[in-house]
Amino acid sequence: MKHVEGGICAVRGVKAKGIKQGKNGLAIMVADARELATSGVFTRNKVIAAPLIITREALSKGDLKAIIANSGCANAFTGEKGIEDARWMAGLLSKKLKCSPEEIGVASTGVIGRYLDKTWLAGHLDEVYDQISSSKEASSACVRAIMTTDTLMKEVAVELDNGVRIAGIAKGSGMIEPNMGTMLAFLFTDATLSRNALDACLRKAVDKSFNMVVVDGDTSTNDMALLTATGYRDCDEKTFQDGLDHVCISLAKMIAKDGEGATRLIEARVSGARTEGDARAAAKAIVRSPLVKTAIYGKDPNWGRVVAAAGYSGAEVDQDRISLKFTGNNKEAVLVDSGMIVEGKLEILKSIMDSREILIEVELGIGENSATAWGCDLTYD
Amino acid sequence: MKHVEGGICAVRGVKAKGIKQGKNGLAIMVADARELATSGVFTRNKVIAAPLIITREALSKGDLKAIIANSGCANAFTGEKGIEDARWMAGLLSKKLKCSPEEIGVASTGVIGRYLDKTWLAGHLDEVYDQISSSKEASSACVRAIMTTDTLMKEVAVELDNGVRIAGIAKGSGMIEPNMGTMLAFLFTDATLSRNALDACLRKAVDKSFNMVVVDGDTSTNDMALLTATGYRDCDEKTFQDGLDHVCISLAKMIAKDGEGATRLIEARVSGARTEGDARAAAKAIVRSPLVKTAIYGKDPNWGRVVAAAGYSGAEVDQDRISLKFTGNNKEAVLVDSGMIVEGKLEILKSIMDSREILIEVELGIGENSATAWGCDLTYD
Repeated sequence: MKHVEGGICAVRGVKAKGIKQGKNGLAIMVADARELATSGVFTRNKVIAAPLIITREALSKGDLKAIIANSGCANAFTGEKGIEDARWMAGLLSKKLKCSPEEIGVASTGVIGRYLDKTWLAGHLDEVYDQISSSKEASSACVRAIMTTDTLMKEVAVELDNGVRIAGIAKGSGMIEPNMGTMLAFLFTDATLSRNALDACLRKAVDKSFNMVVVDGDTSTNDMALLTATGYRDCDEKTFQDGLDHVCISLAKMIAKDGEGATRLIEARVSGARTEGDARAAAKAIVRSPLVKTAIYGKDPNWGRVVAAAGYSGAEVDQDRISLKFTGNNKEAVLVDSGMIVEGKLEILKSIMDSREILIEVELGIGENSATAWGCDLTYD
Repeated sequence: MKHVEGGICAVRGVKAKGIKQGKNGLAIMVADARELATSGVFTRNKVIAAPLIITREALSKGDLKAIIANSGCANAFTGEKGIEDARWMAGLLSKKLKCSPEEIGVASTGVIGRYLDKTWLAGHLDEVYDQISSSKEASSACVRAIMTTDTLMKEVAVELDNGVRIAGIAKGSGMIEPNMGTMLAFLFTDATLSRNALDACLRKAVDKSFNMVVVDGDTSTNDMALLTATGYRDCDEKTFQDGLDHVCISLAKMIAKDGEGATRLIEARVSGARTEGDARAAAKAIVRSPLVKTAIYGKDPNWGRVVAAAGYSGAEVDQDRISLKFTGNNKEAVLVDSGMIVEGKLEILKSIMDSREILIEVELGIGENSATAWGCDLTYD
């Protein structure tokens, strides 16, 4: 697997473009497929935005040829009018493509409880649509169009050893909690895969990546990830899964470290958990803990906060069997070994905390399950 | 019920004193009872500190005549040595009182994973013990001794209509999340109540107060609330419960608004929930949401964040039946009425958000249960 340039436009058949003007943004992604297959996962928030309702409905009827996304307004908590507006948005693009509105995915991000700025969207549709292309600049313009609180552009493209490409763009930032705003991910591949295979792979990849930043149950009203396959190249499912995991984890890490003023990426790996759910809960609790985040920002070697977070995570924990290690700046510090404090490590720990990427490893010592979660430090700048 | 001066020393039989020196603090509370009864509730964190282990054990054997508490070191995650140190702390005070160490409650707050500074504690014991008194200054000195990240002193005393007094002191601050540090509460009353009655009343009061700030499962390794009755006055349980609720809710609100740089107290009342658990979950999700907190700090009338928090709380929610009202500065703004956005309220909402205390009322419209939670805004100062 190697990284390639071009974002989503590195994938055969994908054309894109976007425009950002003040708070408003409009992005269009079109898949010219040989054998189209699409899949989506949606927020678990019980308040679910209109564009997700109609996109989920569209996916239940068939595949999506194209995606239209806007930033500046989430079109969430907007009732019947919101649904109509989302359908209208799908219609804007379907007229251009001369297809059914049900072949269009719709995504929105921005303020909740406001209606779409239809005048602005309609006024800029031609400008964006007429410029869709498969250039790398087009992919980047598409990313910029959906950014809101994001400070970093998030796009990644890889080519697998068999020549298959997988690429994605995302928006979302993870400063204080992962729910600091909507998480959107638009993923594309030129692999030939059935809808069922795509569904299975996307769910697994999302669980290992975005769901380890965007904590289950804390998702926003508008979170979604869509995966489109254009079907130009054969690929076995296992190879595809590895590539998709890599793309999604890369994007998730970009989201995790994109906090306003955030300076460090925190990776928490929990192993030795009784169940996988326990491992996931403990890893997420560590990266979510404001105490851990502020300790890392302040280079305060107060590692007890990591243990406390594991303790309240809901995971089964035996405090006499926990081991704890910090790694960063090519150094490592074992702080706890099977429940025993290892003295004299605080100076090394301080210099590890100066690293741009800090790995916290917790071995619970009571089972065989592991999980990894990502977050950033918490600053007051 | 009226408020009285004197903190815990307003309660007959209670003497206290404390000292704070740099990070270290030592507090002593002694109950000279006619008919002693004590009760305690402890953290649900699975990593539980040594002082809690021995205090819980002591309570299982009998009542507590006195409490010794320190700040600066949590004596948590300290293994067998921690247990020995906590027993040693109980022994310090029991020798003075010529009672069993098992009649002493022990509490600690501070850094996790460090051993107690026994030299400092032993060196200051006489100084504190020799000055215990029933003056209001003694209660205040006791509060100051257990403060760590706290910026406000938390003490309250009330006299019920029947003359019974209930008082409490607490430490804890709720800036980013309630688990910003240990929550300790020491409650006293001169009422005559059985251990069983005290247990039942304390659990109910804690559930309505501290647990609505210090969110279940997010408790620190050292959280505890102890309630001591000195037994000088008769009181029916219902009257006592009302008084204890008032004292605990007052302390909980002080904790909620004591965030470094926090400027506003947020009270979230959720009604019309299907279950009490749903009401509690939704109310807590609202006051915990960093999005709601930052919106309130920024006076940003982005009320959709409240609805989103209710949506991801786990509570059953039907977005077409939600109503939402903000109150503050003697003004109110109904923003959503049974799922319909009420337009034209954003200017009033901005001026409400300028209030020192902001009430957010959410009516879910699908049941009969309600709950209230407290938090503060989130600032970057």
